[in-house]
Amino acid sequence: MDFSSFCTSLGTSFVIFLVLMILFALLQSKPGNNVVYYPNRILKGLDPFEGGSKTRNPFSWIKEAFSSSEQDVIAMSGLDTAVFFVFLSTVFSILVICGIILLPVLLPIAVTGGAGKKLTTSEGTFNELDQLSMGNITAKSVRLWAFFIACYFVSLVSLFLLWKAYKHVSWLRTKAFKSIDVKPEQFAIVVRDIPPVLDGQTRKEQVDSYFKAIYPETFYRSMIITDNKKVNKIWEELEGYKKKLARAEVVYAGSKTTAKPEGTRPTNKTGCLGLIGKKVDSIEYCNEKINELVAKLESEQKVTLREKQQNAAIVFFSNRVIAASAAQSLHAQVVDHWSVFGAPEPCQLLWPNLKIKYFQRELRQYLVYFIVTLAIFFYMVPITFVSAFTTLKSLEKLLPFIKPIVKIITLKTVLEAYLPQLALIIFLAMLPKLLMFLSKLEGIPTESHAARAASGKYFYFTVLNVFIGVTLSGTLFDTFKRIQNKPKDIVPVLAESLPGRATFFLTFVALKFFVGYGLELSRLVPLIIYNLKKKFLCKTEAELKEAWAPGDLGYATRIPADMLIVTIVLCYSCIAPLIIPFGALYFGLGWLVLRNQALKVYVPRYESYGRMWPHINNRILASMVLYQVTMFGYFGVQQFVYAPLLIPLPILTVLFGFICSKKFYPSFQHQALEVAASEVKEVPNMELIYRSFIPLSLSSEKIDDDQFEDARSEVSRQTSFV
Amino acid sequence: MDFSSFCTSLGTSFVIFLVLMILFALLQSKPGNNVVYYPNRILKGLDPFEGGSKTRNPFSWIKEAFSSSEQDVIAMSGLDTAVFFVFLSTVFSILVICGIILLPVLLPIAVTGGAGKKLTTSEGTFNELDQLSMGNITAKSVRLWAFFIACYFVSLVSLFLLWKAYKHVSWLRTKAFKSIDVKPEQFAIVVRDIPPVLDGQTRKEQVDSYFKAIYPETFYRSMIITDNKKVNKIWEELEGYKKKLARAEVVYAGSKTTAKPEGTRPTNKTGCLGLIGKKVDSIEYCNEKINELVAKLESEQKVTLREKQQNAAIVFFSNRVIAASAAQSLHAQVVDHWSVFGAPEPCQLLWPNLKIKYFQRELRQYLVYFIVTLAIFFYMVPITFVSAFTTLKSLEKLLPFIKPIVKIITLKTVLEAYLPQLALIIFLAMLPKLLMFLSKLEGIPTESHAARAASGKYFYFTVLNVFIGVTLSGTLFDTFKRIQNKPKDIVPVLAESLPGRATFFLTFVALKFFVGYGLELSRLVPLIIYNLKKKFLCKTEAELKEAWAPGDLGYATRIPADMLIVTIVLCYSCIAPLIIPFGALYFGLGWLVLRNQALKVYVPRYESYGRMWPHINNRILASMVLYQVTMFGYFGVQQFVYAPLLIPLPILTVLFGFICSKKFYPSFQHQALEVAASEVKEVPNMELIYRSFIPLSLSSEKIDDDQFEDARSEVSRQTSFV
Repeated sequence: MDFSSFCTSLGTSFVIFLVLMILFALLQSKPGNNVVYYPNRILKGLDPFEGGSKTRNPFSWIKEAFSSSEQDVIAMSGLDTAVFFVFLSTVFSILVICGIILLPVLLPIAVTGGAGKKLTTSEGTFNELDQLSMGNITAKSVRLWAFFIACYFVSLVSLFLLWKAYKHVSWLRTKAFKSIDVKPEQFAIVVRDIPPVLDGQTRKEQVDSYFKAIYPETFYRSMIITDNKKVNKIWEELEGYKKKLARAEVVYAGSKTTAKPEGTRPTNKTGCLGLIGKKVDSIEYCNEKINELVAKLESEQKVTLREKQQNAAIVFFSNRVIAASAAQSLHAQVVDHWSVFGAPEPCQLLWPNLKIKYFQRELRQYLVYFIVTLAIFFYMVPITFVSAFTTLKSLEKLLPFIKPIVKIITLKTVLEAYLPQLALIIFLAMLPKLLMFLSKLEGIPTESHAARAASGKYFYFTVLNVFIGVTLSGTLFDTFKRIQNKPKDIVPVLAESLPGRATFFLTFVALKFFVGYGLELSRLVPLIIYNLKKKFLCKTEAELKEAWAPGDLGYATRIPADMLIVTIVLCYSCIAPLIIPFGALYFGLGWLVLRNQALKVYVPRYESYGRMWPHINNRILASMVLYQVTMFGYFGVQQFVYAPLLIPLPILTVLFGFICSKKFYPSFQHQALEVAASEVKEVPNMELIYRSFIPLSLSSEKIDDDQFEDARSEVSRQTSFV
Repeated sequence: MDFSSFCTSLGTSFVIFLVLMILFALLQSKPGNNVVYYPNRILKGLDPFEGGSKTRNPFSWIKEAFSSSEQDVIAMSGLDTAVFFVFLSTVFSILVICGIILLPVLLPIAVTGGAGKKLTTSEGTFNELDQLSMGNITAKSVRLWAFFIACYFVSLVSLFLLWKAYKHVSWLRTKAFKSIDVKPEQFAIVVRDIPPVLDGQTRKEQVDSYFKAIYPETFYRSMIITDNKKVNKIWEELEGYKKKLARAEVVYAGSKTTAKPEGTRPTNKTGCLGLIGKKVDSIEYCNEKINELVAKLESEQKVTLREKQQNAAIVFFSNRVIAASAAQSLHAQVVDHWSVFGAPEPCQLLWPNLKIKYFQRELRQYLVYFIVTLAIFFYMVPITFVSAFTTLKSLEKLLPFIKPIVKIITLKTVLEAYLPQLALIIFLAMLPKLLMFLSKLEGIPTESHAARAASGKYFYFTVLNVFIGVTLSGTLFDTFKRIQNKPKDIVPVLAESLPGRATFFLTFVALKFFVGYGLELSRLVPLIIYNLKKKFLCKTEAELKEAWAPGDLGYATRIPADMLIVTIVLCYSCIAPLIIPFGALYFGLGWLVLRNQALKVYVPRYESYGRMWPHINNRILASMVLYQVTMFGYFGVQQFVYAPLLIPLPILTVLFGFICSKKFYPSFQHQALEVAASEVKEVPNMELIYRSFIPLSLSSEKIDDDQFEDARSEVSRQTSFV
């Protein structure tokens, strides 16, 4: 890619961004689009427009985003989102500080470096941009010292800001836990690996007697985990018919025009997809089905509660401190019995995973790791193909019929600029679902934990495949075979290939932030989908609400995607310092756009109180180590004899991670008792807390409390201090 | 060493053993020696002779040892000793099973192996014994399959028995904790890293308010750790003068004969060692000094309690479960504040180490590891010298004047047999004190933990230096330089050298069990020392009691020494199977002799409830991995093409250790709550529990309770359930 196509790419991206911004400014002020642009505020019962003013400046969202405090974010979108902003602002600060200090120093040194056009990087694609990079410095030059110092500078600034960020997140977490509001999950623990029931004892009696013996004062009651597969299915079917009924009633009401006051009763066919089978009256049919299913659900609920009890339970305590302490204490002499963990929010609990036994969980985990490792290494193959298509020339060779299209010069430039990046982005969109599925297969008991696990896998996937893969096979197509024979050569080969891909990644970052954030802010896709659904599908209010439901920020894919940018920018920060402002723009713009989205659009599905941070921190550190190791390799390629002086850097980074995990991590893993001991607003209503953990499919207004007795323990109401 | 000197060595060892046994049989029946042979029974207030019979069979101790149950051992010597016997009997069972199965198979295969005298091991010392080893098999022979299967057999038998042993120890530990007797340490936790006191608050108020907030019902009171250096010194001085006074009074009473009824008042000089200075009347002088010191002690106690408070405390709870749960819970948001661990027995607590801060402890630990690693590697040098002296020939060369002595043929044989082993044993006796000192320097807070840490260091020391060092430098004196250049060669070089040292280690094991256990049982050294002290030094009852105080089993050195034997026997179990019966004898005889010693002689200083076991287990596994790796190397040396089939063995062993650490270890680290929740005999007397933690130098009958108030918190007596 030469300089002109780089500029074209940048320009086009910017134009697209501008267009999207204008669209956003126009569309967001239309009241009809409020549900697309302000769903979070609407769901929270707030007026979409701040201050209630009807007229609005199309750029007021920028002011609102800037003036919002961390507390506003926590209030509107939860602690997890606030922690995500800590991540964005930390990386942004690192890049801004590095940019301000390094750019004015390194760029002049590089431009006057001397190697100039004489030295060409691999594939002879040396261009104007490469003059601004370390590749322009003659080997063994004294000028390398500047880059060497820059390398230290970037690392030290990063570590310093990461330390501050970790402290801040830890403080935020404490503050959230100290909140005087009663949270159900603070009064419960989840017990797994309950040993088999003795004869003549029910599961409930077993659990109750066990915990009553240990916590005679504070044990409240227990809820046995059941196998809800069948009851869930019936419940979903029932809900489906309820929706259909509502829809049919609306349709029927709509057909009662003044011309035809009796209306037309809607009909449907009972067979597959409503296309075949007997034609029936929808309202009658649905009512019939609903009555049938309600009875079926009731009996299935009874069966489930009585006969489908698993070897796991939720145990409730009337005291926050005891619950927090119980969640981190060893209960049984052997670990694979009565293992406990602090309960998550009710909605986060993955019931089907709770019954999996200890050693099976361990086994599943290693099995999944193995599968993911395989997947990472065998996806190398498609990525290598993607990179082979990177240049139009190779495309022309493979697909001769596109030659005439390529002849159009503007199109050619645009295609050349975007093709490889687009291929990459589309490719990456395929993966997250699979990784989430694999993570749940591990037997992870909570939704947020599964998201963290999936995010970790995705991170290693993107870094290994996209960054290393593209770098190596893009520039040296057959490097692979060389590396496969001598795995030790990976570092020098990687270092050698880096400068040649600088422009590619510059464009990649620019595309991501201009087009990515433009689309994010303007919400064109959700807007179109919503309008289509509204026009053709939705009949009832509930259906409409479902159509504009905004979803959450999607940490499991968003964070790894951002981490890939962190890795790219860090690795190129010294080699091609020009990437720093692009990275800063990415995270700055990201902060601004997502701030708006967090305050107004997305609704978090769950709250893990910033447990994501240790993972983010460790992955930034992993990126830093990769950066430091490749820099070490690259200094070697440049024949800089003092390169070994870089060795303390990765050691320092690992040490930093170790200290963080010693100092801060335990309080992310467990809840500190001093925090749990802080006061609550009121004596908690244990009955409500207990009820909040009953899954929807098992709770029913009709079903009497007594029927739960089988899976639920006797209430010990004697004592209930908090 | 040839066959005849091996036989001489064995014979001499056996004769020494017999002599020691006869001595023991004679000496133990003398009532005057009861305090040497039965101190444990005497201290427990039991009759030295079981059943109270006056006449005794000199071999009745064997019957008594065999008929004693594990419960007897626990009752007489505590759980730690019982766990030590589990170790001995487990290794013994492994060796007996392996011996019975392998010897009849492997020995005939080896003798008819074919390589015979043609093949000589290094240094040409091939002898009759080597015909019974794998060295006698021709390379690539099919017979190697037998040894290969033996290798798997030994490993699998070991793992199976280790698993059973771990389960048994875990059960023993649970049983001990479930005991209905109240143990003070079960009601207390130790808190370290208490943050600095705020203005206007005392340390006591700080600790009390912190724990009262978290445990409003069950917090009893706290005891602030103080710097007792000075008060301890004064107290020791005072105790010294008290002893001197008692002694002087006995001397004075003794001088009142009928001839001289007024007696002679003893005198002493006040200067250095009682040799110079003013001559004074001892009784008066001591009384004067005691009065002076009692006043000094009292004022120093006050100063210590008020002004020398440290950032650590012991916190008492009125409930066993809460204390156990508190000991394993995270209290503060950041880990380096308010870190807790379960209190050990009062006598085990190392007060001076409690004040060391979190990160300093971490730092100290790594520093000590570094020093120990250095020590291990630089002790290689002296060991190499010791091994160079292994043969009399080299001694003759170095010290020509011993030539005439060596000429005497019997002496020569004896010397040749013992010299290297003796040098080794003496050398090893020097180390434990240093390692214990280093372990305490790490900041370890309890005596038993320090013993475990020292034992671990000692194990690596002996295995690396004695086993590997002797094997390599004994046979290939300059292998070292070769290895230093190519560290990867260590395994084949080690494997090659093993067979040549088989006889050396056979003799070493034999010497250790015959002479070592003979001396152990006969207690000749303590007997002589006791009698000398009784005759010349001791005047008072207290002094006599001190003279025969038996001490404890000394795990910190005994276990690593036994582990060295385990390592040696395992590593040679297939190469030279003849070592198996020697090993079995070592552990069988050890079990018998130490059973007697545990029941009648040694008094354990502390009780750690078998916490040693995970360490023993892991070290046996480490020995097994060494064995499996060297076997792999040795099969390579023998050009056995199926050697790679051994690779699953070390993996299996490591996996076994991993599973054990997952399944059993947590309950050794923490107390399981279900165990702590078992009933106690009576409502515990919290005041007594509290008092048991006050060090001797700070407790005094004279000092009123009120004076402790500064370091002690207000008593909250409202609630006290157990």
